[in-house]
Amino acid sequence: MSNVRRVFFVSDRTGITAEALGHSLLTQFAVATEQVTIPFIDSVERAQAALRRIHTAAAEDDCRPIVFSTIIDPEILAVLRHSEGLVLFDFFDTFIGPLERELKVPSSHVIGRSHGIADDSTYDVRIDAINFTLNHDDGATLRHYSRADVILVGVSRSGKTPSSLYLALQFGIYVANYPLTDEDLTGLRLPRVLEQQRDKLFGLTIDPDRLHSIRSERRPNSHYAELRQCEYEVARAESMFRREGIPYLDITTMSIEEIASTLIHQRGLVRRVY
Amino acid sequence: MSNVRRVFFVSDRTGITAEALGHSLLTQFAVATEQVTIPFIDSVERAQAALRRIHTAAAEDDCRPIVFSTIIDPEILAVLRHSEGLVLFDFFDTFIGPLERELKVPSSHVIGRSHGIADDSTYDVRIDAINFTLNHDDGATLRHYSRADVILVGVSRSGKTPSSLYLALQFGIYVANYPLTDEDLTGLRLPRVLEQQRDKLFGLTIDPDRLHSIRSERRPNSHYAELRQCEYEVARAESMFRREGIPYLDITTMSIEEIASTLIHQRGLVRRVY
Repeated sequence: MSNVRRVFFVSDRTGITAEALGHSLLTQFAVATEQVTIPFIDSVERAQAALRRIHTAAAEDDCRPIVFSTIIDPEILAVLRHSEGLVLFDFFDTFIGPLERELKVPSSHVIGRSHGIADDSTYDVRIDAINFTLNHDDGATLRHYSRADVILVGVSRSGKTPSSLYLALQFGIYVANYPLTDEDLTGLRLPRVLEQQRDKLFGLTIDPDRLHSIRSERRPNSHYAELRQCEYEVARAESMFRREGIPYLDITTMSIEEIASTLIHQRGLVRRVY
Repeated sequence: MSNVRRVFFVSDRTGITAEALGHSLLTQFAVATEQVTIPFIDSVERAQAALRRIHTAAAEDDCRPIVFSTIIDPEILAVLRHSEGLVLFDFFDTFIGPLERELKVPSSHVIGRSHGIADDSTYDVRIDAINFTLNHDDGATLRHYSRADVILVGVSRSGKTPSSLYLALQFGIYVANYPLTDEDLTGLRLPRVLEQQRDKLFGLTIDPDRLHSIRSERRPNSHYAELRQCEYEVARAESMFRREGIPYLDITTMSIEEIASTLIHQRGLVRRVY
């Protein structure tokens, strides 16, 4: 372990935010790390247990462990802050003081306002958005398109499903998706069922080589996966998007987060969930 | 707008981390805010455009706008930092200096190491995990259970599907889920198909009242949604979990993030994606 730096993400909730920011910071350094998340540290006792765990793990290390924290409660945080033999990066409390001064109100220091389901309706919106998206995946149901916030259109395996699910889960956005069929592509016409929803349409496209490789993994040596077929479908889909004035996005080098984020901002979608 | 504080999340990537941390900080204050995310600010020109947008929006406000940033590049960040008439909370650069001193190496200040698909395999793992999860949702396919990292077991509408999808999307974890049927519940026996995968099983349970309300929304006045039926199913499922020694979780008051996070830590699952 001597060349690997030990890192802990400690949170009073899930630790997802601490992981995201801490990981993003660490990728800036050419240092090998071993990263461990310790979630749900919402009492002094649990903080003491976390501390023991950190010290035990790092006992043989040459360097002191790095701890990224999003703990809100000052008393719980103090357990980490006053411990020797670790270095603490405090993602939360660092900003609370300056924010109090700027907002001119004291903070409440209450755990769990974020991501919680204290607000039942938030939970319901996400579950409902996921169900909607699953029911309207791959053109499975063409009804209720009017309830969709956005309808993703593209050839098979152009990233519609993962993007839809991410939008539903992360933001509570209702997404339907419609896979362009051979018939749609041959006719170069917008499928009739989509015509009434024109304002909600958003195209996804992808580099044919990449599509070929994705489809080949799924159905090796099929007509469906042939490079020529991929080239044909992508070219026809893009023609349709341009002819019909449907905005579209080439997702070849994009992560799911980037696709989702771009869609939200280009379409002005409103997130229902934080 | 005079009573609403204007807040911007500015990022060189999607802004998802800035939103998560910034939102979590703001929930500590009894202050009404209007929150806007400005993603993909990855050049000085874009930063200048973002700045114009911020100043235009806030021109009539009584208070200066609050800007939360996760911008990595110091030159791009400088555009915000040197602007008058806003208050900047810098989630990234605040920690880079201290981290450099602790790690004794300079940071690379490179945009986009996180969430990216610079690493193709990360992208593939997530897509593959989502496809696996969709194919193994609701007991749809009982094959390939051996590839699952975890198999969620529970009565219908006990949170299996959203939790599965979140684990796949956020962490690249392969999740199957198995809905307990009437037959399974009557027999109080572990379904045979699950017996070989005993070590991967994890139960989800839920308060019968809450289940009743969820099912009623889905199928009003059905036998399936009756409170008695919900009570019966939940009691039988919990009996089975206890008899068979399957660890289980009551998800009634948990968010999807909390369910996912708890599962990862209780089962020692390894995330494949950051």
